[in-house]
Amino acid sequence: MILASDSRTHAGVDNFASFCKMTLFERAGDRVVVLLSSGDLAGTQAVISVLTQRAAAPAGPLTIWTARTMFDMACLVGDAMREIERRDHPHLAKSNIAFNASFILGGQIRGEPMRLFRIYAEGNFIEASVDTPYFQTGEAKYGKPIIDRVITPDLPLGDASKCVLVSFDSTMRSNLSVAMPIDLIAYERDSLAVKMRRRFEQGDPYFSGLSKEWSEGVRTVFRQLPELQW
Amino acid sequence: MILASDSRTHAGVDNFASFCKMTLFERAGDRVVVLLSSGDLAGTQAVISVLTQRAAAPAGPLTIWTARTMFDMACLVGDAMREIERRDHPHLAKSNIAFNASFILGGQIRGEPMRLFRIYAEGNFIEASVDTPYFQTGEAKYGKPIIDRVITPDLPLGDASKCVLVSFDSTMRSNLSVAMPIDLIAYERDSLAVKMRRRFEQGDPYFSGLSKEWSEGVRTVFRQLPELQW
Repeated sequence: MILASDSRTHAGVDNFASFCKMTLFERAGDRVVVLLSSGDLAGTQAVISVLTQRAAAPAGPLTIWTARTMFDMACLVGDAMREIERRDHPHLAKSNIAFNASFILGGQIRGEPMRLFRIYAEGNFIEASVDTPYFQTGEAKYGKPIIDRVITPDLPLGDASKCVLVSFDSTMRSNLSVAMPIDLIAYERDSLAVKMRRRFEQGDPYFSGLSKEWSEGVRTVFRQLPELQW
Repeated sequence: MILASDSRTHAGVDNFASFCKMTLFERAGDRVVVLLSSGDLAGTQAVISVLTQRAAAPAGPLTIWTARTMFDMACLVGDAMREIERRDHPHLAKSNIAFNASFILGGQIRGEPMRLFRIYAEGNFIEASVDTPYFQTGEAKYGKPIIDRVITPDLPLGDASKCVLVSFDSTMRSNLSVAMPIDLIAYERDSLAVKMRRRFEQGDPYFSGLSKEWSEGVRTVFRQLPELQW
């Protein structure tokens, strides 16, 4: 499973900043759970703080460390979102703002297969399957075609990682609301530990090389495509 | 100059139909003017009918056949849009609908270079330049990255045609609101006549082959990209 996020948050082009949108909950041998956030930063940060704070309490109800399944984990995230929404909604509504935080939740808990969810702003969620093995959230359209062409459930992790990076690179070239650093985790089935994690800062030599070679590669493919007969 | 359009119009997924969105005004040796439309079909059709009807009148003010420059032509289109908007707006507003027709206008009138405009729903417009040599309108995001990577002002017409077709193919794979047939014109500078025009229907052998070879080509490029070191 590949999980990746950019770091740009913005409230208009004259007010942007960099925040990591990837949160990792890892207990080696037991669970690797990754939360990718998009939308309103105040909302997503509050949700993550609620989840983390409750998990640190000495005892209490179900938490990210005691949830038995990824489904229960998705419910926990949804519940935290609804709680924040209840708290913030009346105040946001005064400025005509909707609570628009949303998440992608992926990972594995011991005893279960890997599972991947997309959690909507309303706190309900859908789960990926063989037919649709990936989710995107946020500024998703620019980077979708390359994923649709390349990603299949049996694609090796290495090729899938490259595809995700190219998808982000394509988006960043076409849109200012997505930007480096890119956080990337490749999780290997049943490893129950994160062994492959990278952060790509602006100017990262591998990322820059990938972008350049990809652009040159697709131009070569164009030259080799059959000429159109009019 | 390459001009291309799809043919899908829809009012929700359960109400879609096929309409050509490309209108050609051609008088060989004098002018080749192409209008690509997007948005509300009632609006775009009305604008084209107004333009065509006025041009057919025996005498009268400036028309698409008598405009001296592409700038004047863009003004004509903008004026027609504002006229339809004035007529329809009060009625659309009752259903909370905005007049959202927009156009891309491209071509050449004798004595001028080729010129390309994007005309907004409000009837104002911008013109392409060396820095931004292309425009898209409608469901543009999916198909933009491949154009951003490949299209330069000096790209041969043949490669640019292939790129535009791949851009449409990418969009159609990722989004249901864009669909065949695709209309394509490649206009050669100073020819003042349309010599390369094709319509690609669903199942067109060239288009299907292009799509397949492109997908295979990019997968090959992925395999050849340098492996990520974690």
